[in-house]
Amino acid sequence: MDGRILVPWEQNRDNAPASLTVEVFDGHGDPPPDVLDDVVFYVVPYGRDQRVDLIPRMPRLRAVQLLTAGYEHALPYLPAGVRLYNGRGLHDASTAEHAVALILAAQRDLFRWAEDQRSHVWQPHYTRSLADSRVLIVGYGSIGAAIEERLRPFGVTVVRLARRARPAEQVHGVDELHRLLPTTDIVVVVTPRTPETEGLIGAAELAALPDDALVVNVGRGPVVDTEALLAERGRIRAALDVTDPEPLPPDHPLWDAPGVLITPHVAGGSAAFYPRARRFVDEQLQRWAAGEPLVNEVAQGSG
Amino acid sequence: MDGRILVPWEQNRDNAPASLTVEVFDGHGDPPPDVLDDVVFYVVPYGRDQRVDLIPRMPRLRAVQLLTAGYEHALPYLPAGVRLYNGRGLHDASTAEHAVALILAAQRDLFRWAEDQRSHVWQPHYTRSLADSRVLIVGYGSIGAAIEERLRPFGVTVVRLARRARPAEQVHGVDELHRLLPTTDIVVVVTPRTPETEGLIGAAELAALPDDALVVNVGRGPVVDTEALLAERGRIRAALDVTDPEPLPPDHPLWDAPGVLITPHVAGGSAAFYPRARRFVDEQLQRWAAGEPLVNEVAQGSG
Ligand SMILES: NC(=O)c1ccc[n+]([C@@H]2O[C@H](COP(=O)([O-])OP(=O)(O)OC[C@H]3O[C@@H](n4cnc5c(N)ncnc54)[C@H](OP(=O)(O)O)[C@@H]3O)[C@@H](O)[C@H]2O)c1
Ligand SMILES: NC(=O)c1ccc[n+]([C@@H]2O[C@H](COP(=O)([O-])OP(=O)(O)OC[C@H]3O[C@@H](n4cnc5c(N)ncnc54)[C@H](OP(=O)(O)O)[C@@H]3O)[C@@H](O)[C@H]2O)c1
Repeated sequence: MDGRILVPWEQNRDNAPASLTVEVFDGHGDPPPDVLDDVVFYVVPYGRDQRVDLIPRMPRLRAVQLLTAGYEHALPYLPAGVRLYNGRGLHDASTAEHAVALILAAQRDLFRWAEDQRSHVWQPHYTRSLADSRVLIVGYGSIGAAIEERLRPFGVTVVRLARRARPAEQVHGVDELHRLLPTTDIVVVVTPRTPETEGLIGAAELAALPDDALVVNVGRGPVVDTEALLAERGRIRAALDVTDPEPLPPDHPLWDAPGVLITPHVAGGSAAFYPRARRFVDEQLQRWAAGEPLVNEVAQGSG
Repeated sequence: MDGRILVPWEQNRDNAPASLTVEVFDGHGDPPPDVLDDVVFYVVPYGRDQRVDLIPRMPRLRAVQLLTAGYEHALPYLPAGVRLYNGRGLHDASTAEHAVALILAAQRDLFRWAEDQRSHVWQPHYTRSLADSRVLIVGYGSIGAAIEERLRPFGVTVVRLARRARPAEQVHGVDELHRLLPTTDIVVVVTPRTPETEGLIGAAELAALPDDALVVNVGRGPVVDTEALLAERGRIRAALDVTDPEPLPPDHPLWDAPGVLITPHVAGGSAAFYPRARRFVDEQLQRWAAGEPLVNEVAQGSG
């Protein structure tokens, strides 16, 4: 027989092509040894404890599918020749949605209204708005494009920036960052953490922004320099889903910094993930059954 | 001479056709009597204290332009034959933006994160999302359409409802409300207050919604029945920019009701208003100079 496929959700088993032998493993407990013996394709269940430790116990294994974008945690377990696939794109909708939520929260004073509600205070005031803002997306990749799509109907001007310029797509290169900052109202940071992006938004970049500009970070904490942000003392506002350090210790000054909103790295983790992940696993199973290459390959075990 | 026009902003004076005599009155103090004697077109400055009381002191007056949608406050002052124009549409962008902000705040637990920030607590959890939701817009008019436009890229299904069905535009009539509620995740209420809309979302309508549905109100407080909402005890969530009563007294149980978020009637009042209002006044002055009818006429004084 062709070997077994382990999937995390019943829907994937029910939707699978009839030619495949598919079983559900949701990450709790261990599958029996005779099942492990037969697994050729393992979709690792999503959750805090990812059972990549089971990989070496699957002698017939040919492919491992993760549902996260990060995959470093699986590499040490990957036997020679086994291909590894990641979940790139599955968190885009969730992360982009949260980025827009943070922008609106900052512009429309939502954290203030939350505090007023707590104190039973009804005290309206006129707020900023998102409409008419110039938004610079620093890291115009998969999530950056999803953010732009959601911002468009709010009547904003979006400016795109990535590592390298792509003039055909009106994407600026990072070498133009300083030129673009003085006319930016809202900077959305959504780059990965790399040696080049650490401190990319530092004292000089913040200084180049106009008064009252907003820096949103849904990428990685160290891309925005925490000390430099604190030194602005509220001249620049910020809405941060990721921080440096992370988690933010209880006594850190960022918690009470003027004009700073914080959410605890929750942009990617929302209900938007599940339907997308289930559909994606369905599609990978169809490719597998048709003998087509799977998408999102990120590594192959070298043994 | 053709008489004077009073406008609230210098930009309007500077942009006005050269044939017009335009002066700035920003609502502070009183214009001198000889100015009042000559005013033929009065654009009432925007703000809490609208100086409609000046209207009867303008003997040559032919037109009054308000920058609010509501106009009842001006009617008692309107002499026979003077036409009244309102600011319909000028608050759409601001109000629609805030409606989306409230939806995202509720789905992505923003008020919780605000409280955690206040307490210096970093405690992430998985949240709901907006993506994949079915959103019913109750009151698909000018603002309702603006809300839909902004929601579309979030991957939602929008269902439209108004007083009367408009099948060509896929707008349902209010008689279909009960049929639509059981499959709705998010209800956005944005009708005016009328005898028919008072209590439109009451106990029966809330009961028809699935568990954990969200009711957003950016229309008028009494359209959602406060007692009925409280009686749901958190089974139905709510995000309310308008309440009944309003302002909400400090000891009102709605403040602490589970799953209820409150902002103090601030949807329309944001920076998005000003550029739109200035442009609109410019356009009305151009029509006036060209002898064309102004838009947004809502009443004519009957003396
Ligand atoms: N907060 C959360 O919960 C959450 C959730 C998911 C993801 N994330 C973060 O979001 C990041 C982006 O994800 P993605 O899927 O959009 O990745 P992606 O498609 O690879 O896009 C990354 C973008 O960053 C740009 N970039 C890289 N280095 C840069 C530099 N030095 N200067 C300027 N731009 C640079 C890239 O430019 P080029 O196109 O020129 O290479 C690319 O446009 C992830 O790496 C992760 O750190 C956070
Ligand atoms: N929170 C704030 O700060 C704020 C700011 C601005 C406005 N508002 C509120 O928002 C309301 C809507 O403004 P708008 O400019 O969008 O007005 P609009 O263009 O006149 O639209 C109102 C909509 O409500 C519908 N409607 C009226 N009675 C109804 C009923 N009994 N059942 C179902 N639908 C009904 C109308 O249906 P038909 O098309 O069939 O007539 C219309 O589609 C305003 O009246 C105001 O109360 C609030």
